[in-house]
Amino acid sequence: MTEGDTQHTQQQRSNGARDGAVVWLTGLSGAGKSTLARALEAHLRSAGQRVEVLDGDEVRLHLSKGLGFSREDRDTNVLRIAYVANLLARNGVVAITAAISPYRETRAKCRALCGARFIEVHVSAPLETCEARDVKGLYKRARAGEIAQFTGVSDPYEQPERPELVIPTHELTVDAGVALLVEQLRARGLSG
Amino acid sequence: MTEGDTQHTQQQRSNGARDGAVVWLTGLSGAGKSTLARALEAHLRSAGQRVEVLDGDEVRLHLSKGLGFSREDRDTNVLRIAYVANLLARNGVVAITAAISPYRETRAKCRALCGARFIEVHVSAPLETCEARDVKGLYKRARAGEIAQFTGVSDPYEQPERPELVIPTHELTVDAGVALLVEQLRARGLSG
Repeated sequence: MTEGDTQHTQQQRSNGARDGAVVWLTGLSGAGKSTLARALEAHLRSAGQRVEVLDGDEVRLHLSKGLGFSREDRDTNVLRIAYVANLLARNGVVAITAAISPYRETRAKCRALCGARFIEVHVSAPLETCEARDVKGLYKRARAGEIAQFTGVSDPYEQPERPELVIPTHELTVDAGVALLVEQLRARGLSG
Repeated sequence: MTEGDTQHTQQQRSNGARDGAVVWLTGLSGAGKSTLARALEAHLRSAGQRVEVLDGDEVRLHLSKGLGFSREDRDTNVLRIAYVANLLARNGVVAITAAISPYRETRAKCRALCGARFIEVHVSAPLETCEARDVKGLYKRARAGEIAQFTGVSDPYEQPERPELVIPTHELTVDAGVALLVEQLRARGLSG
């Protein structure tokens, strides 16, 4: 009995098998990550591209139940998302993640894991804008002290220094944001 | 801003996109799950089929660090594997899992999650055979009381009642086992 091949080399997988990508959306709560993720998903799917959205909340339910919002728990959650996104991407899927992922060092680990498939996108809006939107009512609760360790209020958000893309959602429509993302994917030969 | 489509219906994904499968190998430690998984992986990859192996140990490292071997922790781990396997399978990948997954009820939940993509395979060998092989030296340690809750020794293994396939590894070669698996996949239009 042999163990067979246990390694995934680029060459092995290139048997007519195109790589996907990891579109890593990072930004404050309320910056528009999920909205962009869903809009890009719809666009890519209608173009026949395989696509999955790994949303922060959904992934927490399936992969990280019981984890909290300490730095360590956030990191564990974010690295799990990266692990799954990379599994999908190396099989031709565009995996779109939508987790705050506030720490620079942790995002660097995600990039190291995913290699050239990683596209870091800063979904950027001023804190005041995000707080004014307050889609889930979380800022209000954070300001009232009902939520501890809330990114941007009582926990840090470390902006990307050299992301592949910045999308200022306070200045662009969703469609314009999607167009920027699609451009990144087209440059990699992925349909959009 | 709209949320776009958030549901993955079979129809949406059939834009020229073929489903994969979840090959769910279940059985005692030492029954031969990993060996079969790696041999099937090599076979499928050389045939140009996208394939991933989700091995119990590797997945524990990436997705379930900190979980133990209580019934609850085992279930959490197994359901996470099923979640990831299903994500891959609905994107055309043959996802091969190799976790003991000792509980019938938990495997039923995995089947419910994966739907028609789920192929339950009982990798079957008598306990004495597995114990004689003792590839990782775990049975010896379990008998010595050094490992608690060891499946087959101090923890139950609930055999599948209606698996899609049984592979008696004490009676078949690895190649013969792979041939049985490939037959199951061919019947679903997956290359092998």
